[in-house]
Amino acid sequence: MSAPPHRVVIVGGGFGGLHCAQSLARAAVEVTLVDRRNFHLFQPLLYQVATGALSPANIAAPLRSVLKKQRNTRVLLGEAVGIDAAARRLLLRDGELPYDTLVVATGSHHHYFGHEEWARLAPGLKTIEDATEMRGRIFHAFEAAEREGDPARRSALLTFVVVGGGPTGVELAGALAEIARHTMNHEFRSIDPGSARIILIESGDRILTPYDPKLSEKAVAALAGLGVVVRTGSMVTAVRENGVTVKTTAGEEIIFARTVLWGAGVMASPLGRIVAEATSAEVDRAGRLMVEPDCSIRNHPGIFIIGDLANFSHDGGRPLPGVAQVAMQQGHHVAKLIRARLDGRSLPPFRYRDLGSMATIGKRLAVAEIGSWRLSGTIAWLAWLFIHVLKLIRFESRVLVLVQWAWYYVSWNRSARLITGAQERSDESAGGAR
Amino acid sequence: MSAPPHRVVIVGGGFGGLHCAQSLARAAVEVTLVDRRNFHLFQPLLYQVATGALSPANIAAPLRSVLKKQRNTRVLLGEAVGIDAAARRLLLRDGELPYDTLVVATGSHHHYFGHEEWARLAPGLKTIEDATEMRGRIFHAFEAAEREGDPARRSALLTFVVVGGGPTGVELAGALAEIARHTMNHEFRSIDPGSARIILIESGDRILTPYDPKLSEKAVAALAGLGVVVRTGSMVTAVRENGVTVKTTAGEEIIFARTVLWGAGVMASPLGRIVAEATSAEVDRAGRLMVEPDCSIRNHPGIFIIGDLANFSHDGGRPLPGVAQVAMQQGHHVAKLIRARLDGRSLPPFRYRDLGSMATIGKRLAVAEIGSWRLSGTIAWLAWLFIHVLKLIRFESRVLVLVQWAWYYVSWNRSARLITGAQERSDESAGGAR
Repeated sequence: MSAPPHRVVIVGGGFGGLHCAQSLARAAVEVTLVDRRNFHLFQPLLYQVATGALSPANIAAPLRSVLKKQRNTRVLLGEAVGIDAAARRLLLRDGELPYDTLVVATGSHHHYFGHEEWARLAPGLKTIEDATEMRGRIFHAFEAAEREGDPARRSALLTFVVVGGGPTGVELAGALAEIARHTMNHEFRSIDPGSARIILIESGDRILTPYDPKLSEKAVAALAGLGVVVRTGSMVTAVRENGVTVKTTAGEEIIFARTVLWGAGVMASPLGRIVAEATSAEVDRAGRLMVEPDCSIRNHPGIFIIGDLANFSHDGGRPLPGVAQVAMQQGHHVAKLIRARLDGRSLPPFRYRDLGSMATIGKRLAVAEIGSWRLSGTIAWLAWLFIHVLKLIRFESRVLVLVQWAWYYVSWNRSARLITGAQERSDESAGGAR
Repeated sequence: MSAPPHRVVIVGGGFGGLHCAQSLARAAVEVTLVDRRNFHLFQPLLYQVATGALSPANIAAPLRSVLKKQRNTRVLLGEAVGIDAAARRLLLRDGELPYDTLVVATGSHHHYFGHEEWARLAPGLKTIEDATEMRGRIFHAFEAAEREGDPARRSALLTFVVVGGGPTGVELAGALAEIARHTMNHEFRSIDPGSARIILIESGDRILTPYDPKLSEKAVAALAGLGVVVRTGSMVTAVRENGVTVKTTAGEEIIFARTVLWGAGVMASPLGRIVAEATSAEVDRAGRLMVEPDCSIRNHPGIFIIGDLANFSHDGGRPLPGVAQVAMQQGHHVAKLIRARLDGRSLPPFRYRDLGSMATIGKRLAVAEIGSWRLSGTIAWLAWLFIHVLKLIRFESRVLVLVQWAWYYVSWNRSARLITGAQERSDESAGGAR
């Protein structure tokens, strides 16, 4: 009689968890992938859902469908709420799962630096629901402005504040500008959507801080060309129904805006702290678990933390960034390590291979750092397009994405700009329709 | 100085309202189209969203985008709550709109024959939100079944009851069967999705009553071939969390099912009764307004009711059916009449030209009545496909729909099967994951 197979439980079907599972396809292990959602989300394109260019299903692949041919793997819809490290059991909201190796890859969510009450007023962008909520707010603002008689309120409806000058904020601001200047052209009778103000607010002294300063400048120029006002060195100190308060060295200022989008803070998912308590692992200020050079937790060689949930800082101190590449490479590394251990082998520590990073601003506008190359403009945009098309190859919906991008490219039209869900919100315009 | 233009206000951007607006494109009138939603919905394909084959945006076109080139027309997002017929004003929740001619085309919604408490347990299918709710329930049931240890509860999770043997019910039941037998194949480890029971319940003595009885038989045979159990002469007398009670001549029976989908009753939208009170119009049992042969309300020649909201019964008594064709032709007729009146001409009464009806059951399975033709099987399915592709030509997303249909045709895969929104519901399975 053979020994029971080694049980690997992976929590989270994002880039890290999914790649880990896929890298275990031919291993002599029994893999269980647990996620609260039934799909893998291609998060780098979530801003395109939030701005009506793509549909949620275009960037989401059912986990079951992705893994159906991998016979050693099963997918469970479930929510992990704790672990019993001594008994090696993952605790779910309604059950438990024993494991021999546990891989935790539950990622991060946006947070508001202690102002969680801002969440309602300034939605962030991590889930499909976030994206459809944002999409509804954006397009509803133009609709309400068309009916608003009061100039001040109309102006606030046509002012969009994006908080955070990282890739998400830059991509959102650029897309908003294209919507206002191009997509909405000729569609309104009372307002000129092109007059909308889009303000990108960044507390640091430049946007896209991980990039070369030259590229930050190029991005600012590209955004300015689209009509986006970029305000660096500006800290948001309050968010209200009708706008935000911004503090600079010159003092405080109120920007009246009915739509505020949040692309600023990121916090590790709550499961991180629960795992940390159960394993006495160290946690950083962003809630990430400090991991060993092999991505495991100290004294718990059978528990791995990968992706946004991990603070991997073995290359001179700065933790690795919270990007898909890191998560995927860590997932792959952990899978290799699991296989090596089963064979009685060991592996060198995890090393991140930086394949470059890029952010897109608009049509033929992007910035990219690939190795020692610094690209901007059309060439960076083409690189962005090429790489994202390649990445989407795994997705059944890749053809759909290409068709929609091509259509948008020639027409500026965004086919998915639906106001759905809870967006039948009260707008203050009491002035009547005429 | 010329006279102010004739103001036409259209309430509702469905098939009737949108076609009326479009037929007024070159008329010397000022058109305002008011809708609560910012998009026109291609409702005949809503069941494909509910079953994960298409995304909401594939069957929804932003009204603004559709009408942007029609310079005499503006689109307003707003909710009509009443009319002041004497002063000729449409009352909105937050304002009002004066009109010279009013066209009310707010359609219908599903209803539960006085059991509105069933709505929560057995969602209907009229809106995008209904469709994503249904989609979530369907795919969540399979997920919960995979984790359910108790055989009785697992069986209830794998039992799907569709109430109502009209086109919606038939299309839903057929799609559910294809999902269970084909789409989900090889995706689960604990359950066999192909063992799911799909039960279509119809209170009348046959399904698809408006069709020739021969076609009803063909539809039953096609459904049976897919594994759907069709129960005619069966009245649903209770809906609960865990199933439905069905009454037949043989007595009452309980069917244990965790997913109950409602395709049965239809009721005119609430604005109908409000308009009826304001105009002393007669209302039928389904809440529809009795209209004159020109689609206007008696004694109110400037108020027209079209589509599902109207009871047009001038051809021998039976009201015209609540289908897109009737609404579109009525919208076109009213637009022609408005133009004729401005020229001092009159028009013959509205006459419905029945272009045929069709319902699709599955891949190469459909029934169709076109004139004196009775089609079924592949030929009916091809006719259905051809006509729907033609109808979708107006839609920017038509290419996307075709790509997705083609992909489904070769792979059975449904790319849009996301569980989103409120679907993170508690499932009763407390038995644990293993």
